[in-house]
Amino acid sequence: MKKSISPISGIKYEIPTEKDKKIKSFIEQNACKKVVAVQGLGFVGTVMSLVVANNDNNQYCVIGVDQPSESSYWKIGDINNCQVPVVSSDPLVADYFNESIKRSNFYATHDHNAYSYADVIIVDINLDVTKVKDIDNNIKSYDVPMDSFKNAMRYIGKVCKPDALILVETTVPPGTCKKIVKPIILEELKKRNLPLDQVLLGHSYERVMPGPNYINSIKNFYRVYSGIDRESADAVEAFLKTVISTDEYPLTRLDNTESTEIAKVLENSYRAMNISFAIEWSRFAELSGVNLYDVIDAIRLRPTHANLMYPGIGVGGYCLTKDPLLASWASQEFFGLEGGLDSSVKAVEKNDKMPTYCFNFVRDILKGKDEDIKIGLLGVAYGPGIGDTRFSPVENFYKHLSQLYKDIYCNDPYLNYWDELKLDIETSLNKFFENNFDVLIITTGHKDYIEGDLIYNVLKTLKKMPTIIDTVGLLNNNKLPACYKHDNFHVLGVGTKKEKIK
Amino acid sequence: MKKSISPISGIKYEIPTEKDKKIKSFIEQNACKKVVAVQGLGFVGTVMSLVVANNDNNQYCVIGVDQPSESSYWKIGDINNCQVPVVSSDPLVADYFNESIKRSNFYATHDHNAYSYADVIIVDINLDVTKVKDIDNNIKSYDVPMDSFKNAMRYIGKVCKPDALILVETTVPPGTCKKIVKPIILEELKKRNLPLDQVLLGHSYERVMPGPNYINSIKNFYRVYSGIDRESADAVEAFLKTVISTDEYPLTRLDNTESTEIAKVLENSYRAMNISFAIEWSRFAELSGVNLYDVIDAIRLRPTHANLMYPGIGVGGYCLTKDPLLASWASQEFFGLEGGLDSSVKAVEKNDKMPTYCFNFVRDILKGKDEDIKIGLLGVAYGPGIGDTRFSPVENFYKHLSQLYKDIYCNDPYLNYWDELKLDIETSLNKFFENNFDVLIITTGHKDYIEGDLIYNVLKTLKKMPTIIDTVGLLNNNKLPACYKHDNFHVLGVGTKKEKIK
Repeated sequence: MKKSISPISGIKYEIPTEKDKKIKSFIEQNACKKVVAVQGLGFVGTVMSLVVANNDNNQYCVIGVDQPSESSYWKIGDINNCQVPVVSSDPLVADYFNESIKRSNFYATHDHNAYSYADVIIVDINLDVTKVKDIDNNIKSYDVPMDSFKNAMRYIGKVCKPDALILVETTVPPGTCKKIVKPIILEELKKRNLPLDQVLLGHSYERVMPGPNYINSIKNFYRVYSGIDRESADAVEAFLKTVISTDEYPLTRLDNTESTEIAKVLENSYRAMNISFAIEWSRFAELSGVNLYDVIDAIRLRPTHANLMYPGIGVGGYCLTKDPLLASWASQEFFGLEGGLDSSVKAVEKNDKMPTYCFNFVRDILKGKDEDIKIGLLGVAYGPGIGDTRFSPVENFYKHLSQLYKDIYCNDPYLNYWDELKLDIETSLNKFFENNFDVLIITTGHKDYIEGDLIYNVLKTLKKMPTIIDTVGLLNNNKLPACYKHDNFHVLGVGTKKEKIK
Repeated sequence: MKKSISPISGIKYEIPTEKDKKIKSFIEQNACKKVVAVQGLGFVGTVMSLVVANNDNNQYCVIGVDQPSESSYWKIGDINNCQVPVVSSDPLVADYFNESIKRSNFYATHDHNAYSYADVIIVDINLDVTKVKDIDNNIKSYDVPMDSFKNAMRYIGKVCKPDALILVETTVPPGTCKKIVKPIILEELKKRNLPLDQVLLGHSYERVMPGPNYINSIKNFYRVYSGIDRESADAVEAFLKTVISTDEYPLTRLDNTESTEIAKVLENSYRAMNISFAIEWSRFAELSGVNLYDVIDAIRLRPTHANLMYPGIGVGGYCLTKDPLLASWASQEFFGLEGGLDSSVKAVEKNDKMPTYCFNFVRDILKGKDEDIKIGLLGVAYGPGIGDTRFSPVENFYKHLSQLYKDIYCNDPYLNYWDELKLDIETSLNKFFENNFDVLIITTGHKDYIEGDLIYNVLKTLKKMPTIIDTVGLLNNNKLPACYKHDNFHVLGVGTKKEKIK
């Protein structure tokens, strides 16, 4: 029998091959509550489940559904075994999980039959983009394989009540709810001889940030929503009002599901493009002796320019690296837009190239040093304050660097293991610095490193001062020990400091 | 003798060919004041002059300098003739001008000798970019001819005091202060056997908005500044503190002149790129039945996305249409950046193509209508709230439209004459509607049109309801007369309204 090991609790769970008979008793225990099924227990689905299970009036019980696979089943095991199924810097995650245990209103299963009990089915599964890139990271083509998403919809359609509310939260190619989800559900209902006119189908995307405000990024934040018709939109609204603080963060209803589907990918594309913009200017800044971070700080004082982004090692995470492509793909496949969203695709390409550019910057600085120098990387997560390495730009950077240097160590306050590279990560900064580094590279802008002047204080205690290369503009050179005032400190996106007159 | 006619006062001024002998007496009248010379009396220089002349302690007298040419000399004439030299919706402009008359501390001249008296010389002249475009508005090449700017610097160097503060406010290719201005000034001082070590040269760009807050966009707004050395930066700081409300809007000093030069073009490029981003998505929105304005409003609720721009007829004005090219040109010419700032150039190109796209949108709607229909354009300025038609996207749009239709009328509350097209403009909306239009096209998003529901009320009084095409998302279809609920109202960047469920 195959097993799935939890990277969090360490528990090994046997992967079942049969139907789950416990669902029924969970439902019976919660007989007076409405049933919410959440499809997909990833970064979004798990925490969305917790928020629903913790709703103010305790009116829901939640069944989380995921795959009986080695990589996924442990989440089901952990949840049913009273183990917090997510590592997070947000203490509310554990609080919410413990409250759901007290309420006995959160259960997880691999069995699609769960949907048959549901009044609300929330779709939180992944929908990935495949990119084909050449050796220089130019994007040659991209595709959105829809098969597994379609199958997931079919699982729902095969068993769901004809009047269940299906709420898609997954970031989908705009057009998906109407062109993919609705036809599949109707087809399956028809096979079951059920009425077709009661279907409630809506879209409301999440804006989850898996950092210190993980729970609040769902519960206390603005939501945009829509439905395939007025009844659907009304049903989505009624549901969201019971789980989100909509008094403080009013809901926005848009005309149709295409609108909210576009809104989601547009807002992420906007962000990706703003980063690629800063990246384009960083080389100019380096060549002209300009500190781009200072320039951007100065410009951001204008409210109309407050969203200007810093440059840095590149863009990572599950969303910004793919959503512009998802949008461009849909614009062509579903709506025949000639050429797609070319600039948005180019922005992703520019961002994808940044880790290589950053590596070249570092390589030039280290030119002439021995192969066996000890290098420490501070941060492997894709962004500040989060323990998520999916599509982290540090991964690509590390792969380049490790071809030249063997002795590379990694630190991250939020991660003890780097899944993509199968590497152990040191979480303690003091322990990390026992390695006596020759070179220190800041690769993620975790605020933890500078809070209470942590890193500056650690550096002061070192006997050997490493060369420091900051790829994300985290450090303040005025706080570094005196030996860094001239040559031993380098920042990506910052030119020569010779002319500094501050 | 050639004459220059003021488009504001209507007065005809003889253009002098000789030296100006009145400068000396103006200086003598203001003997106890420091002398500030402002080079260039355009949209920036004139109002900067007024702000300096109105400084709190009445410590400056101001000499504005411009060319003795037909197109420019009237500004000098108007100023010395006590005529407000700018049309503006900001009442402070006239107030400030009248105060300067009371103080007798503002004089204008064509004579470069003015600089010889100056303690501070502010450079506010234009620096243009030439674009070569193909028939489809693709940018084939662009150049920044520096000759006239260099000449202007030489006029200063030929007569200035060796310790005058030269403050460049012109948007220049980054690198210009050090690579162009400084060498010219030093060369001229050397010819005059004057000391070379007293030169004070700085850069501080303006953020002038020639709308209802014209004066305050200089006096009460953040400023970024720099100098070629510490003494220069200190001198710029000391001067700016006497004319700008720096307590409320603290100054930001950057490391070197390249930094502020880059900051200016970067902040305008950011804006140009954000508009081009919205433009890229507007066609997708139209095809998929999505109201992009609603989508953008919904996303803007996120503070991280508040700078998201609307799509529209295109980008105009003197800055956003050229600054990204200025930057890209300098990155290659002065600093050898291979390929320049490609995405920023592409953003300008995309924006430049928009009036043509907008025309095609309108043409498709009007297909089948007679050639002799009457069309009214609401707004010819390049943006809301301003009376400025420089590089207005409406110009290109008008040129296209006028090839198909003869009977086109223009309205703009801020302009009675369209200089680029030599067209009279009607400023009154009531008078304008006496034309009995078949088609009304909103081409500038002036708030004036909707304030107090002005346009909705005017429309209600009409006997014949024109087809309305809104190219800038200004109108609210719920406020339009009932006949516009279905077919007679079209918005660029908005798909079919059939599915509207709000």
